[in-house]
Amino acid sequence: MNELQQRILKEGQVLGGGILKVDSFVNHQVDPALMDACGREFAKRFATLGATKILTAEISGIAPALATAIHMGLPVVYARKTKPITMPDQVYLTLAPSHTKGRMVELIVSPEYLANHEKVLIIDDFLASGQTILGLARLAEAAGSKIVGIGALIEKIFRRRARCAHPAWRAD
Amino acid sequence: MNELQQRILKEGQVLGGGILKVDSFVNHQVDPALMDACGREFAKRFATLGATKILTAEISGIAPALATAIHMGLPVVYARKTKPITMPDQVYLTLAPSHTKGRMVELIVSPEYLANHEKVLIIDDFLASGQTILGLARLAEAAGSKIVGIGALIEKIFRRRARCAHPAWRAD
Repeated sequence: MNELQQRILKEGQVLGGGILKVDSFVNHQVDPALMDACGREFAKRFATLGATKILTAEISGIAPALATAIHMGLPVVYARKTKPITMPDQVYLTLAPSHTKGRMVELIVSPEYLANHEKVLIIDDFLASGQTILGLARLAEAAGSKIVGIGALIEKIFRRRARCAHPAWRAD
Repeated sequence: MNELQQRILKEGQVLGGGILKVDSFVNHQVDPALMDACGREFAKRFATLGATKILTAEISGIAPALATAIHMGLPVVYARKTKPITMPDQVYLTLAPSHTKGRMVELIVSPEYLANHEKVLIIDDFLASGQTILGLARLAEAAGSKIVGIGALIEKIFRRRARCAHPAWRAD
């Protein structure tokens, strides 16, 4: 995705502490043409996986996941970080560290939408330590679904060493 | 939008206390074809306003706002409810009551993306008391922008009486 790379080079700001600010086109303001193009690219790359559902985490995963969902024609579920009153009492919940919040956050999904032996494609904005994506995978597997693919708009490759220090998660 | 009405009638659940659960296609799981159709409909209805930017509130406003933004070719800004570390120290912040959370929540936007005399179209999932939308309007106007239109997927018309008890906000 040359278009995304060029945009990061042009507008991304390194704030220190491993933080890349892309608020002008991904995380606070969203460029719909760019996001639509990213969704189309994900759809193309993951076309043959037989995915039945897309899973992401609120908040900033919603835009890339929805753009991908529109191109793949698949429902998208976004894990909540606070349990809304519309959710049943019994939910799947896990914890994951948030790099930008500096604390653990809850990831919560309702069993209503992941319990049907889904083939789950995880889409998120950032892949840094991978802990959010691992948390989403735990939720999906606990619900009896299977992860068939993982896509992130931006990988922080300088955090690969930190990621490898954690137990690796693999599909199958 | 007959498609949305039929879906609410088929899958919406009234939980009591004025809560309509539409988690299977709007608020936790999103139906991308339906959301895309809603975005197309908003784009059609608001085509002549000269809008330059779409504004919504995280979390569940993001999907309808992005779908609309894709069809209108306009950037979308989502107000944050917690200030991320990527935001500047000086922000626009207002408070609005959350019906589903039962408390006041903060709505925060960075001056970076609303200060350019934008013509703002507000898109949200629900219009209940209207307080979230009023909050978004306050943020946009404080930043020097102007509201040109407001769209919500679902209006809770039974809350109109409560809404009218508050001072009305009008676009010019």
